[in-house]
Amino acid sequence: MADRLTGERLVDDMTVDEKARAALVEQVLPALRAGAERADRDGAFPIGHIGVLREAGLLGLIVPEEYGGLGGTLRDLAAATYAMGTACPSTALAFFFHNTSASRGLLPLEAVSSGLFADDEVPEVRAFAEKVLRLMSGGTWLANFASESVKSSSANIAIATTASPVGNGWELTGEKSFGCATGIADYYLVTARLDGTRNADGLAMFLVPREAPGVSERPAWDGLGMRGSANHGIRLDRVFVPAADALTVPGAFVKMLQCSRGSFVGNQLAITAVYTGCAQAVYDDTLARLTRKTFADTGKSIAESPMHQVIIGDMTEKLETAYLWLRRQLLIETVEPPLLTKSEVYAQWRIAKGSICQAAFDVAVGAFKASGTSGATMHGLVGRALRDLSMGLVMTFPPERGRLEAASVVTTTKANELFASVSAPR
Amino acid sequence: MADRLTGERLVDDMTVDEKARAALVEQVLPALRAGAERADRDGAFPIGHIGVLREAGLLGLIVPEEYGGLGGTLRDLAAATYAMGTACPSTALAFFFHNTSASRGLLPLEAVSSGLFADDEVPEVRAFAEKVLRLMSGGTWLANFASESVKSSSANIAIATTASPVGNGWELTGEKSFGCATGIADYYLVTARLDGTRNADGLAMFLVPREAPGVSERPAWDGLGMRGSANHGIRLDRVFVPAADALTVPGAFVKMLQCSRGSFVGNQLAITAVYTGCAQAVYDDTLARLTRKTFADTGKSIAESPMHQVIIGDMTEKLETAYLWLRRQLLIETVEPPLLTKSEVYAQWRIAKGSICQAAFDVAVGAFKASGTSGATMHGLVGRALRDLSMGLVMTFPPERGRLEAASVVTTTKANELFASVSAPR
Amino acid sequence: MADRLTGERLVDDMTVDEKARAALVEQVLPALRAGAERADRDGAFPIGHIGVLREAGLLGLIVPEEYGGLGGTLRDLAAATYAMGTACPSTALAFFFHNTSASRGLLPLEAVSSGLFADDEVPEVRAFAEKVLRLMSGGTWLANFASESVKSSSANIAIATTASPVGNGWELTGEKSFGCATGIADYYLVTARLDGTRNADGLAMFLVPREAPGVSERPAWDGLGMRGSANHGIRLDRVFVPAADALTVPGAFVKMLQCSRGSFVGNQLAITAVYTGCAQAVYDDTLARLTRKTFADTGKSIAESPMHQVIIGDMTEKLETAYLWLRRQLLIETVEPPLLTKSEVYAQWRIAKGSICQAAFDVAVGAFKASGTSGATMHGLVGRALRDLSMGLVMTFPPERGRLEAASVVTTTKANELFASVSAPR
Amino acid sequence: MADRLTGERLVDDMTVDEKARAALVEQVLPALRAGAERADRDGAFPIGHIGVLREAGLLGLIVPEEYGGLGGTLRDLAAATYAMGTACPSTALAFFFHNTSASRGLLPLEAVSSGLFADDEVPEVRAFAEKVLRLMSGGTWLANFASESVKSSSANIAIATTASPVGNGWELTGEKSFGCATGIADYYLVTARLDGTRNADGLAMFLVPREAPGVSERPAWDGLGMRGSANHGIRLDRVFVPAADALTVPGAFVKMLQCSRGSFVGNQLAITAVYTGCAQAVYDDTLARLTRKTFADTGKSIAESPMHQVIIGDMTEKLETAYLWLRRQLLIETVEPPLLTKSEVYAQWRIAKGSICQAAFDVAVGAFKASGTSGATMHGLVGRALRDLSMGLVMTFPPERGRLEAASVVTTTKANELFASVSAPR
Repeated sequence: MADRLTGERLVDDMTVDEKARAALVEQVLPALRAGAERADRDGAFPIGHIGVLREAGLLGLIVPEEYGGLGGTLRDLAAATYAMGTACPSTALAFFFHNTSASRGLLPLEAVSSGLFADDEVPEVRAFAEKVLRLMSGGTWLANFASESVKSSSANIAIATTASPVGNGWELTGEKSFGCATGIADYYLVTARLDGTRNADGLAMFLVPREAPGVSERPAWDGLGMRGSANHGIRLDRVFVPAADALTVPGAFVKMLQCSRGSFVGNQLAITAVYTGCAQAVYDDTLARLTRKTFADTGKSIAESPMHQVIIGDMTEKLETAYLWLRRQLLIETVEPPLLTKSEVYAQWRIAKGSICQAAFDVAVGAFKASGTSGATMHGLVGRALRDLSMGLVMTFPPERGRLEAASVVTTTKANELFASVSAPR
Repeated sequence: MADRLTGERLVDDMTVDEKARAALVEQVLPALRAGAERADRDGAFPIGHIGVLREAGLLGLIVPEEYGGLGGTLRDLAAATYAMGTACPSTALAFFFHNTSASRGLLPLEAVSSGLFADDEVPEVRAFAEKVLRLMSGGTWLANFASESVKSSSANIAIATTASPVGNGWELTGEKSFGCATGIADYYLVTARLDGTRNADGLAMFLVPREAPGVSERPAWDGLGMRGSANHGIRLDRVFVPAADALTVPGAFVKMLQCSRGSFVGNQLAITAVYTGCAQAVYDDTLARLTRKTFADTGKSIAESPMHQVIIGDMTEKLETAYLWLRRQLLIETVEPPLLTKSEVYAQWRIAKGSICQAAFDVAVGAFKASGTSGATMHGLVGRALRDLSMGLVMTFPPERGRLEAASVVTTTKANELFASVSAPR
Repeated sequence: MADRLTGERLVDDMTVDEKARAALVEQVLPALRAGAERADRDGAFPIGHIGVLREAGLLGLIVPEEYGGLGGTLRDLAAATYAMGTACPSTALAFFFHNTSASRGLLPLEAVSSGLFADDEVPEVRAFAEKVLRLMSGGTWLANFASESVKSSSANIAIATTASPVGNGWELTGEKSFGCATGIADYYLVTARLDGTRNADGLAMFLVPREAPGVSERPAWDGLGMRGSANHGIRLDRVFVPAADALTVPGAFVKMLQCSRGSFVGNQLAITAVYTGCAQAVYDDTLARLTRKTFADTGKSIAESPMHQVIIGDMTEKLETAYLWLRRQLLIETVEPPLLTKSEVYAQWRIAKGSICQAAFDVAVGAFKASGTSGATMHGLVGRALRDLSMGLVMTFPPERGRLEAASVVTTTKANELFASVSAPR
Repeated sequence: MADRLTGERLVDDMTVDEKARAALVEQVLPALRAGAERADRDGAFPIGHIGVLREAGLLGLIVPEEYGGLGGTLRDLAAATYAMGTACPSTALAFFFHNTSASRGLLPLEAVSSGLFADDEVPEVRAFAEKVLRLMSGGTWLANFASESVKSSSANIAIATTASPVGNGWELTGEKSFGCATGIADYYLVTARLDGTRNADGLAMFLVPREAPGVSERPAWDGLGMRGSANHGIRLDRVFVPAADALTVPGAFVKMLQCSRGSFVGNQLAITAVYTGCAQAVYDDTLARLTRKTFADTGKSIAESPMHQVIIGDMTEKLETAYLWLRRQLLIETVEPPLLTKSEVYAQWRIAKGSICQAAFDVAVGAFKASGTSGATMHGLVGRALRDLSMGLVMTFPPERGRLEAASVVTTTKANELFASVSAPR
């Protein structure tokens, strides 16, 4: 099917409105692509890309129109991060993290509509939610920091960063790892535990300006891949946040999770679209090169050698596998009426993310093998893809973990908690 | 999602009409399940199952209502063979082959509508097509025989069976392998080459009554699996077929293939639904057993041992992989408007069939490993599933071939022919 | 290397004496091969094979010459079970189990030499050990029954069969599963726990004549493969064993294990040689067929098709993988001076057994795929090999377990116990 | 087994003399290890390592004592490159290539002994051979350049570099890719075709001083891994080589190959020892880290999480797989009397090299997954190992090719040629 928008390779049944939004994404791809190698080489966030995205109006891609956004959904987001992943995976990743912030606006509003909050809680919830959404649609880049480096065996994410009440606001202390756009984003959206609480009901959210006193960056992280995403994380040392920039209603975080239709806090699947886009790009590039390059003796293309046929067949199967898991997840998180219960959707996601990331990485390994030593460079497309896609194996846990979680779900119907509140390690 | 029809696990967005047809399938499952072990043990077609299916009106499942059928589509067929595959894989396989006959009615009619036939050819085409469809909806079991055992390196299927004109009809001589219900079906629908022709334009179709003079069965084939499907094939020794029971318009076969939206002659994907159903059944059975059985010392279920968790996680991922390929193929062969071109649909199928069958087999191997020696019996559900699902590895070619075909498609845009007309080997 | 004995494919550096013993094995292979299909078809132990083996003097293959045997070692045993595995896997398996009995003679003698027994215990130990060895070299078939069907999460084998003192002997009650030659062997060598004991120190060994009162067979087990090995197991209902036919010195079993240089009670690796031999046979057969059979159009051999080249390449690699693990294990269990510590040898074995059995099974799956539907029969060599080799996946635990055990060894240096004494389930 | 030399993990049955030589290797490992990260970071050959190796006398490691060397064999070389691979893979790789030069001395001498050369050819052959060996033992670093970047479908290596007679010597023109120590080695040992010849009989060898007029380096190659090996290759533009520094006797190259007992020109297996050493190092490092690091809630080591156990088990199995193939290949290339024919040895090597390199890479991927984002850095040990080991997938062809070659050998007994002489592409 010719002349499709890039994102339509993933979301192949776009509506007219979705195509219009995808066309906005399409126009930024050349600029993103042009900056990709440099961003990787320097290991630095390609700051210019933010302007490109902002001018295209894409920072509010999934913010509802009533809050000034483009009104896209998870389908738009996945199509966008996929398309950007074919051009500059680091930018796509950072864009994904910016957009995960939207769930901190949308889900609380949904929880309000569902009557999950008491009447007197509603104003605070609504105010915070709308602030997040209007910041995004207004062109503000939000870096969403949830994860920390402390590990808990019983939850996927353990939160030790702590907020203590002080004057007309809160003081935050802790360390957040793994969120993109460190030192770049206008605001950091920080999840922390209220001092004295012991479970997920005590989790709260705070908007922290990048330059607020007490905010510093963790040491730059010389990542193997996704090197242009500035994901080294931040330190917070008694950072003051006014009450108006916080959502501290008890249980708000949990209620928000309840309203997420899909995996995690929602939107999570769009990160795997980044990897899938990157895999498609290295696949296309490899096939183009190998079908052009010929053997000195027979004149046939390198791609037709028996070894290359085997590797290309395997790559083709792996690439399609990534799409299959991703499209299915997108369907079950967005289709109306729902096909599956929320817990079924979530169980599926536990396997899906690992399977997608592994398949995408396998495509890169195939491209690497097929390209031979001439493709085995640090900064060429194949070497970069191998490095960028390796990150998918650890950023959302390896597939080995997803399969074990799925096994646990089907045999004990007990699953790991998503978030735990833990004491900060000394 | 509770209380779904079995087929809804595969086709999870059934319409009301589809659910009504699936309910007819649901009611025959207990009878099919009851006869499965015996059919396997005896290596004999469970003849009673034909009556069950006929009485339920299912022989005309995918025949349009205007020809007396239930008006189902490929979606119904896949849901049906899947559901039957959970109960009696051999019957499901035979039912699949019966239904492939419908394409020999539906596709020629579509070719007529598309103006592919000359005006003077239309009556013969239409007459044959309608006869096939009315036979099916009238409760006649049709065994569709296309494949032969001769191998051609350039085509997936080579046809050496030859029809020579004689009197007011044709005389057929040759041998057809691999089609179910040998000695059981009321009619054999035989594809043969017209004497003197050399390519696929000379392929023609004939309705041969089971008891016609000159028809005999090939030696019974003691298959490793799918033992109740009577797939040993037939011999034709100068079998007379009246002109009225033949479709010999030159090029009819090729024109029919052109109208197939999907893979092969259409409907092919429903064979992989058989294997997927079988895999689901052995998965369910294994989990049920292993979560009930406990360790003598800890009282925990066997399923919770680390080894079992690994194997169950892998099985879960493989089973879902089968569904993903199958659902995607079903979508791209049925959705309106089409998402992909016919050649894209077909390229996808080349990989899909192997990937589905391999994944289903892998589920059985996982069930086998997880069940230990107590499940490693010849006729228990696990042993049967391992044997039945092994057949999927060869019945539609191994996945290694599908991947090579896909590689050939993407690198040379040349693909293997589906059918070749070859001289009969002496 | 032409004209090698079959066993030399595995043990490729045989001494002159070893070759002489291997020549005895070589001469029985035709008789074994002739009876293999029938044994599988009937699911019955090919009783005639015992006579063949006995007449060849092979029942004492690994009994030292001073006790009337041929003086072979584990190297001879592995070469023998491998060679027999190429001919009749069931017989090879039963022969393996007969020979494991030798360890119940050899290891106690070694423990005596090492001073592990008190002076007053030595006579009983020595008497029992010599009796076992002399029975074997005298042409008695010993079925060694250790395993039971009760599962313990903390040990590989749990023993609930109990021996209570009575008069001048013991009374045994319990059920032993998985040991070959049920109803065939002259004596059953039974491991049981002394009543009132709670750990492996209370394990003891008993020689039980096949026809002793109270001995019965468990229901025949209709195995998927290895169907001619009569491995359904026995029931013991207050079976009397004279003190002279028992080894009940406290701790004897544990001391015996201490003297085993290799895996388990020793000799265990020879079971994987059975599977490797079977894999070699199906590999050879498949290649011979596929290089003879040709395409109708090109005249080239089927084996040369791209798909077949891929599958054959994979099979070749898998087959060699089985040999590599097996030869290494054989080396580290026999070489002087030792290369590795006993615990290192044992850790290696935990992975090796699964890797060998999986590789052998994968060869069979490859042969199955490569052979197409014509090879997919129940009783042909390919179908039989697939079934026989599937048993390797469960008889010694799946490879998934071996890898987890290895992981546990390297990370916690704690490993599962081999044997546990458990209360009989009611 | 404690206190073994590093190389003994691979060659575990060293003689006393071998241990003495391995001890020389052991003493250079700390210096190599200290320079490894920097060499990778800078992408520059760690020149200091050459002095370290030279001073330790290791440049003549496998040169016979009668030519001034240490008298090691392939066993010593494999143990050395393995040990160096645990410390600095780039240096190990370059050291391997230096040592491959020895075959250009040893094999011609063997061909002389075997009477393959005419009497009047012997002096030239002997002189060249001894010169090569004495250079090496004298502390000269020789970079061996055989490969070129032109591809031939019929041979593994195609030679287009051409030598034309001129005055008392030869003039060389062409381009050699992939050989380490470009711009570093004292001499380049260059394989070229004599002008006017058309097959491997016309291949000849030349010693080219690094600084000879007309010699230049190809552009530096920014490799993904093995970045400190200076393997960008050279250009030769009418470079004069005196007759005394050339071996141009017709057929000398082919006769040399005939005398190689093992794979390729001999010694080839030592390159896979580099990768195996690197895999062992990242395995050890990963286990050490993960068994030290603990969960915040349970205090258990990270390594004990179910996911980590699965990954570690897989890594353990893969690492051992690399050893198995490597040790077997070393055995069959060195044991006396030979176990296998030369063609069997060579067929084994075709699979072995890919299987070793794939297994080593898989270990790195496992280490990467197990280490999480904290290990996913560009220059840490895990990131480096992933990049260095990826090179093994392309430097000696991917395993997919080895398996296809093996399939071709077993089905057609025709194998690809090793070397082809081709016209230089314009």
